[in-house]
Parts: sequence; structure tokens; C-alpha cells
Amino acid sequence: MTIKAEILSVGTELLLGDIVNTNARFISKGLASLGIHLYRQGVVGDNPLRIKEEIINSLERSDLLIITGGLGPTTDDLTREVVAETLNRPLIQVPEILEGIQAFFNSIGVEMEKSNVKQSYIPQGATWLENNNGTSPGLIVEEKEKKVILLPGPPKEMEPMFEKQILPYLSRYGSGILKSKILNVFGIGESTMEARVEDILEEQTNPTVAPYCMEQGLILRVTAKAESEEEANREIAVVEKKLRERLGEYIYGVNNESLEEVVVSKLKQYNESIGIAESCTGGMLAATLTGVPGVSDLFPLGITTYSNESKVKILGVSEETIRQKGAVSSETAIEMAKRIRALSNTTIGVGVTGIAGPTGGSIEKPVGLIYIAIDYRGEIHHIKKQLFGKRNEIRRRATNHSLDLIRKVVKG
Amino acid sequence: MTIKAEILSVGTELLLGDIVNTNARFISKGLASLGIHLYRQGVVGDNPLRIKEEIINSLERSDLLIITGGLGPTTDDLTREVVAETLNRPLIQVPEILEGIQAFFNSIGVEMEKSNVKQSYIPQGATWLENNNGTSPGLIVEEKEKKVILLPGPPKEMEPMFEKQILPYLSRYGSGILKSKILNVFGIGESTMEARVEDILEEQTNPTVAPYCMEQGLILRVTAKAESEEEANREIAVVEKKLRERLGEYIYGVNNESLEEVVVSKLKQYNESIGIAESCTGGMLAATLTGVPGVSDLFPLGITTYSNESKVKILGVSEETIRQKGAVSSETAIEMAKRIRALSNTTIGVGVTGIAGPTGGSIEKPVGLIYIAIDYRGEIHHIKKQLFGKRNEIRRRATNHSLDLIRKVVKG
Repeated sequence: MTIKAEILSVGTELLLGDIVNTNARFISKGLASLGIHLYRQGVVGDNPLRIKEEIINSLERSDLLIITGGLGPTTDDLTREVVAETLNRPLIQVPEILEGIQAFFNSIGVEMEKSNVKQSYIPQGATWLENNNGTSPGLIVEEKEKKVILLPGPPKEMEPMFEKQILPYLSRYGSGILKSKILNVFGIGESTMEARVEDILEEQTNPTVAPYCMEQGLILRVTAKAESEEEANREIAVVEKKLRERLGEYIYGVNNESLEEVVVSKLKQYNESIGIAESCTGGMLAATLTGVPGVSDLFPLGITTYSNESKVKILGVSEETIRQKGAVSSETAIEMAKRIRALSNTTIGVGVTGIAGPTGGSIEKPVGLIYIAIDYRGEIHHIKKQLFGKRNEIRRRATNHSLDLIRKVVKG
Repeated sequence: MTIKAEILSVGTELLLGDIVNTNARFISKGLASLGIHLYRQGVVGDNPLRIKEEIINSLERSDLLIITGGLGPTTDDLTREVVAETLNRPLIQVPEILEGIQAFFNSIGVEMEKSNVKQSYIPQGATWLENNNGTSPGLIVEEKEKKVILLPGPPKEMEPMFEKQILPYLSRYGSGILKSKILNVFGIGESTMEARVEDILEEQTNPTVAPYCMEQGLILRVTAKAESEEEANREIAVVEKKLRERLGEYIYGVNNESLEEVVVSKLKQYNESIGIAESCTGGMLAATLTGVPGVSDLFPLGITTYSNESKVKILGVSEETIRQKGAVSSETAIEMAKRIRALSNTTIGVGVTGIAGPTGGSIEKPVGLIYIAIDYRGEIHHIKKQLFGKRNEIRRRATNHSLDLIRKVVKG
């Protein structure tokens, strides 16, 4: 049985643009993994009339409505009350929920506010879900064939509740045989990628192939409908092979793998270790790499030499090189890579130098000019890139290009 | 004249959860700054029937509909075509747009794909807006009293177009005398903050005060309706003073200031310079600080000592301290702060050590335990925090607590 779903995010802070709606994304991804068709996402403010209107319209069109936000303790938080009213159910207090809220405050050593009491009320007949990361329980209200799910707004509360309690509850409603595989692409433009695979995109009806442009790079999503998971995997594999023939090394990973995860697992696979010397990225390459658990076994040392003096005194780049070639040069990047490899006693040393902007550029060396060098067991690889965008975009891209170069260089 | 607005984001990638809808947030913020009332945000897939339905419904309810996405060159991109059909306008080619697209490809040294040609067509009577960062122009279609604005989906194209071309166009429709000031709060929980200012929240009708919980911390938004900007500012100042009396040092900045921007401007103001030694944050503190332009004048050096050996050999922490107290201890954090201050020859040295998880925790030293130390001109400050969350949340929070401690310690 396949059902139609909608998401409604409640919060004036979303309409004022104070926060970005990561909840809708998180829930959408989960529904997609179950093959549940999501038809719409909506956002309204903490306004009872508009919340009610949205609930009524959604339940007319769809079978499942997931609402996030508006379950907090403040007087602005009205979702629980509006859902109860719209579905004609009184709010009933559950003593067990109140005890849980009190226990939560005890565990963080803070006294419960009286405003939290209203979070222990639920619409009659609803199922409530424990919240291990905050005070508001989640709620499932079944109304004939329709379902309304209420989840707290803060992502740190919503995400584990959705993953551990809602996904298992919903799994019976998915089509079960819709399967997707994502190919992650880096280092090529969107239209160039599409031109290379255009005929495949157009030919394919099952599996379908769809390109998307994302911040970290491009993806190709291959989605198969099949009788069984094995059949879906087989169909995806055929299309994946064709795509890999056209895009080769530009495909760096699959599904939710990030560039840094691919790099860390490759480093582990080939028993490599890495030291990082950064200038323009200011620690972002090290911070990105150390976002991957278990990296401490292979990454002993990163140095951000933001001044020329640090490059010379701490890292040991020669003053001569900086004076003659400049701090932003392939020569400096190469010396940084060699020196950090020696200092950290690793198989790989990486040096990144460039101009992140907004100031500091010149005609010869404009903002966005980046040099990346790798000393891989004594073998030197280096690239030069002219990047575009704002300061933090240039830094992010320089970081990604560094990761991509490490990935390409390490071959075992 | 005040108008009602809605935003519609088009893209199956949003419904599949492949990307997060930063565009809706960006546009919402801009509309709020003009005092234009945003009633809804909606998201649908690249599906002509559903896009059409949303356009019709929105134009019935509201005066302005801003649509993002679906203007790209691929066969999936259908927004332009659906808007033309829904508003009964033929698509007309504009040679000037085609020339612009060709010029764009020339500037990045790539040949134009034939699929890009469709981006030079616009609904008859529409106004088109130049896109300096991509190929698809923006479009404004005025239909009697209603307006439909089409913007490209990629944020790097949409954001500058919205800021430079749409905001000036829309400024005549705002109420013009709605003004907000945001107070940024860090280091206190949501309900504790609310309990401290509850009477102010409830009393206030103009200006209104609304609390929001965001990833980096909490905010209080004070919004005044007034005849003139001066009057609004005056009214906001009265409420701000009351809030500051209650929340004191927890308020670290205003409006869009980030913690790191506040820290950098304070360091500049008092002529301080800073060196950073990190363990569990793995470069994130340095990377966050160097996200602020102009920081190179005061930040010469950051060292990420991820192994104990690096802490001893590169930074100069005593082996004794690590053996006796452990790498995760206030003693190690303090030595890291002292040593990095000496190595970088700065007025401030910061040391951060802890356990980011998911592994490496023990009963005595659980995941999330963090020590932060500052050597401020020889004066030592240090804190211990037990943080919760996933690896990257713990790292992010440890970074923010470090920034917050720097902010509090530096007094000039």
C-alpha cells in the first residue's frame, strides 16, 4: 500500500527567515527511503487559523501529514492545541509524560518551569512518543484512514525521534520496492555533466536518472521500481556502469558519502597517514577531515599558518621562497606540503595557500586563486585553481578541491 | 500599501530531501526586512500539474508569489513553461538573453550546450532580470494587481539577484515602518531565558518580543511598528534595555552578528592577537574565526594537535601532564593555551581538548566532556563543559563555547 504524504512546518521564525527549514529536508529524506510519496512541503506561522486551514486541506489531499514545530512550552506554541481542536479531540493530561519532563530537567540540573506543564497534554486517543533530547513528546493521531504526526521543532529532538520511532512506524506504508542510489560527482560543471550523459537521462524510464546541483557538487540519482530489492539493485547496477563509463573519476562516491568520508576510508584502506598545512582555508580542511569519526588514527597534526612568519618559523618554509614567489604560489604550497609531512611524520603532507578575499587580491593574483600541493611519500602533486564566490564559498571549495586531490592521488 | 506574499520552491530534489531549502529562508528574511507579510512557503516537485495548482491557489489568496527553481536548462526544468501556460502568455525568445548566456559561457571558458537555448524564452510581457552568476534570467510577470516573480534555484544565482534586483523592486510594497532588532543569546537554555523575561514577553504589544531557538543559540526578536524609523528605534531601545537588564552577559550581539564576528571585532577594538591550539575541535575554532574577513592581522597561528605526540613534540605540552592528568583535562588545556600563546607570540592563547565521540568516552570522561582554557596576557581562565549531541554538534558547541569564553575574557 502506497500512501501520499505532506509535511507542514509551523513557526513564524521560518516565515521571517530567522532559521532554515532543515526539518523538512530530514523528514523528506526519510520518507523517500521508504518509497513514500511526498507531495508537498508547507510552512505557516504560529497562527491558529492558518495552521487549521493547512491541516484540513492536507488531509483532504493526502493520507499522512507530518507537522513539526509549535510543541514548545511558550504561549506562541499552539500546534498541539490546534490539532486537538481541528480533529475534535479534547486535550488529556498524561501523568507519565509530566514525570518524564521533570526527569529531563533533573538530568540537566535545571528546575522545570511551570510553562512546561502544558507539554504533558495530548489529544485524546493519540499515541505519544518519548523525547530523549527535550521536553515535548511526539504524537501520532490516527483519524480513520488518515494519520497526523506531530514532532518537536528543534532538530536535535526531532531527528532522533523521527529516525527511531517514526520511520519504523511508517515502514509498513512504503511501496517497499522503490530504490535509489546516488552517485556523487565533483570537479565538473552541471551542463557539462548533463551533456555527457544526456542520452542516458532521456532514454531511461526505469530506472530513472535525475541530475541535481548541490552545494558540495553534483549528484545523479538513479531510482528503480522493481518487484524485489535484488531486481532493483541489478537494474541500478546496469545504469550505474553506463554513467561511470561517461563520468569516470568525477564520480567520487555513492549515496550519502561525503568527500571527506571517501578520503578517510581510502586513507585507512591503504594505511596512509596525513598532515595538513593550511593558509587561506584557515583550519577548514583539518576541521572537515576531523568531522569523520576514527580519523585520529591517521591524522596527528594540522597547522594553520596564517602569517608569513608562522610559515617560516613554525612550519619551516624558506623565507627565500616566500620573498621570491610569494606566500600564494605553487612553490610555497609545495614547501608547506613537504614540511608538514616531515613535522607530522606521515605518508602524506598537504599544503593549501591562496586568497580567500574579499581583500588581498591583485591583477596577477586575484581573489579566489588557490594552490594545493601534496607530498605523497616523496612524490609531489600540485594544482592551481581560480575559484569564484564569497570568502567562505572560496574557502569551502578550496577545501573540497584539496580533498578531491587527496582522493585522486592516493592509489595504494 | 501592504501586500500579502507567498513563496513557492520547485524541485523534486527538495521533496526527496537531497537539499535543504535555503532559498525560502533567504527570501523570507528579505521580505521581513521590507515589512512585507509572508503568509506561506510551499514546496512541490518538478511536476507541471502541481506547480500549476499551487500558482492558482497562491494568486487567489495573495498578491505576490515568488517562485524559485525549475528555470535550468534540463528537460526537468518546467517552471517557466508552466507559468506561461497558467497565465495564458506565449513564450517569446529574447535575443539579448541568448547573447548574455553565450557571453557567460565564454567568460568561464566553456562551450554553451544547446539545451541552454530554452532559457532565452520568457512569457510575453514579462520583465527579465540579468543573472551575473549563471545562465537563467529572473522574471517578473505582472498580472493585473498580482505579481509572479521567477528566480533561478541555485543560491549563488538567486541570492544576488534577489538582493540587487528584487528587493529594490519590492520596496514600494512594504509597510516601511516595521522594524526589527535581534538580540543574540548564548550560554543559557530556552526555558530559563523565557522564565527570566516572561513578563516582558507577555506585556509587550508594541514593540513585540519573540524568542526563537536556533542552532547557534537563542535569539530575541524585538519588532516595532511606528510612524518613523526614529520612533521605532526609540521604542526598540526601551525594550532592549529591559531585556539586557535581565539577561546581561548572555546577550553577545545584535542582528546578524555571529559569535565569531563579535569576537574578532572585540579583539580588534582592544588590539589583541590570538593563537589557537585545538584537539577535539580539529581546526574548527580556527576555521570559524578565519571565516571573518580581516582576521589575518590578529591571528598568525593555529595548531591542531590530534595526537598526544603532536601535543608534546610540536606544541610543547609536558609528557608528564598528559600521562598524569590525561590529554582531556584542564591541566592539558591550560598548557596548550600557554604554549600556543608563546609559539604564536600573541596576547591570547586558547587551548581546547575534549572527547567528540562517538567512541573514546569512559565513565570518568564521557563523550562530550570538553575543557577550554585561555591564557590572556598571562592570566589563566578555564572552563569545563559536558556537551550533548552527535560528534559534529559537540565540536560545533565546543567551538562556540570557546568563542564565548574569548568574548567574555577580553575586556581591554
